[in-house]
Amino acid sequence: MYFGGIEAGGTKFVCAVSDEKFEIIERISIPTTVPDETLKHVFEFFDQYKLKAIGIGSFGPIDVNIDSPTYGYVTSTPKKGWNNYNFVGAIKEKYGIPVAWTTDVNAAAYGEYRLGGAQQAKSCIYLTFGTGIGGGAVLNGAVMEGFGHPEMGHISVRKHPEDSFEGICPYHGDCLEGIAAGPAIEKRLNKKGIEVAKDDPYWDKEAYYIAQALVNYTMILRPEVIILGGGVMKQEHLFQLIRSHFNVLLNNYLTIPDLDSYIVPPALVDNAGIKGSLLLAAEKAI
Amino acid sequence: MYFGGIEAGGTKFVCAVSDEKFEIIERISIPTTVPDETLKHVFEFFDQYKLKAIGIGSFGPIDVNIDSPTYGYVTSTPKKGWNNYNFVGAIKEKYGIPVAWTTDVNAAAYGEYRLGGAQQAKSCIYLTFGTGIGGGAVLNGAVMEGFGHPEMGHISVRKHPEDSFEGICPYHGDCLEGIAAGPAIEKRLNKKGIEVAKDDPYWDKEAYYIAQALVNYTMILRPEVIILGGGVMKQEHLFQLIRSHFNVLLNNYLTIPDLDSYIVPPALVDNAGIKGSLLLAAEKAI
Repeated sequence: MYFGGIEAGGTKFVCAVSDEKFEIIERISIPTTVPDETLKHVFEFFDQYKLKAIGIGSFGPIDVNIDSPTYGYVTSTPKKGWNNYNFVGAIKEKYGIPVAWTTDVNAAAYGEYRLGGAQQAKSCIYLTFGTGIGGGAVLNGAVMEGFGHPEMGHISVRKHPEDSFEGICPYHGDCLEGIAAGPAIEKRLNKKGIEVAKDDPYWDKEAYYIAQALVNYTMILRPEVIILGGGVMKQEHLFQLIRSHFNVLLNNYLTIPDLDSYIVPPALVDNAGIKGSLLLAAEKAI
Repeated sequence: MYFGGIEAGGTKFVCAVSDEKFEIIERISIPTTVPDETLKHVFEFFDQYKLKAIGIGSFGPIDVNIDSPTYGYVTSTPKKGWNNYNFVGAIKEKYGIPVAWTTDVNAAAYGEYRLGGAQQAKSCIYLTFGTGIGGGAVLNGAVMEGFGHPEMGHISVRKHPEDSFEGICPYHGDCLEGIAAGPAIEKRLNKKGIEVAKDDPYWDKEAYYIAQALVNYTMILRPEVIILGGGVMKQEHLFQLIRSHFNVLLNNYLTIPDLDSYIVPPALVDNAGIKGSLLLAAEKAI
């Protein structure tokens, strides 16, 4: 029995086929261009297999509200051709099999929950810090969705007292994403995050902002594990800085798991999203 | 078939017995003193009925982690006699029937979800603004709990530019609860919130703080309904002020339900918590 998974990113699509043990049999990476062109490659790939179901973890914003007439659509993205695009509809029309549909970060959270660093836990959050900041969660065994999907990167945070950066979020200025995502770092420092030296004093501010957000997520969701992925987190020294600020800000108010096992990188490294998509496909097939 | 419910507050306990349609047959209110004394009255009341299960929505903090050795305990409360008290154990020992156990606000959220203003919704949050600020949620049909229960009142918010109040939270100073709960209002204005005139300019700041929190809860949880209860919300004019600030802060970033049906008072008025406790008892009995 084969399952298909799509980790649909704004830059590239990763597609994979797995067996029922979720071992990946074949995978490809396709640049994300316009839907027709991108899906042509997706179909060529999946056509080689008889799939039972397909799971999609998609870039957003997307409509995940099953009661909505535009369920399964990518909604208000500036990405050419994808605005108001019926992604699930296109896949279903082609294959006529069940399609699981959620955000890239929910898929990654689910991957870590079932096969990665949160296997011993009953709940987890997965956050990505890259071009944007997004978060997904698994609670009560299911990915967290409500009227729509979370937009955890757009919460407000308090300004660091020595930070005068105005933020670049077109909606909220200096929300978390506006001051701490990759493009904000680049705008501040005139270089990409990955090029910024480990001992640059900016990292302490970045860790302060991320820690603030993690404290708020903790107060609201009480997860057992918080997994931090994305390009910014390739700066591995950030983990200790974040834990340290988190500790000060939480101020022992709550019982949480040991910090070193609470705030962690993804155990599946770059495979959390695609594994989660395959797992969600299997759930949908049942 | 009878169910028992306890809405265990720090000031009073409301106990009720209902039939299987959750119509309340009898209820009492007992002052919360020390556990032995309070439970003596609870037992006298419940002894009159043959109950199938009991549901408790309790003041906190409490241990809701089923894997914890102190599951069912009230934990670090300053309330005399209740610190580290095995509440569920005492009820189970007496009656030997299933006991549902969650926070007062989770019970209220569940009451509103099943029988109140969120019956048409798949998810909701219930917040109380009183002596403290607490929040509960129903997602995927179940109350939201993780490693512990949420402490939504302790998220950080940005200071209003014209507010110099330092906050009174012993852990976080000016977190939401520290600047906007009942005792903070009283400290600022030297009178209880209920005595503050409707046109007092302070209410605009209060609404600004609450709206900030609601935007953050929205970004993280995407509920279909947000229900605001508690003593502070008896100032009904606050609802419009909160909706107005919320609208500005969200800045059309997300699709949400119509604001007048999104941010609402409890449809069950003061019965959300006890009804939720009875409903949770019935769930546990199945």
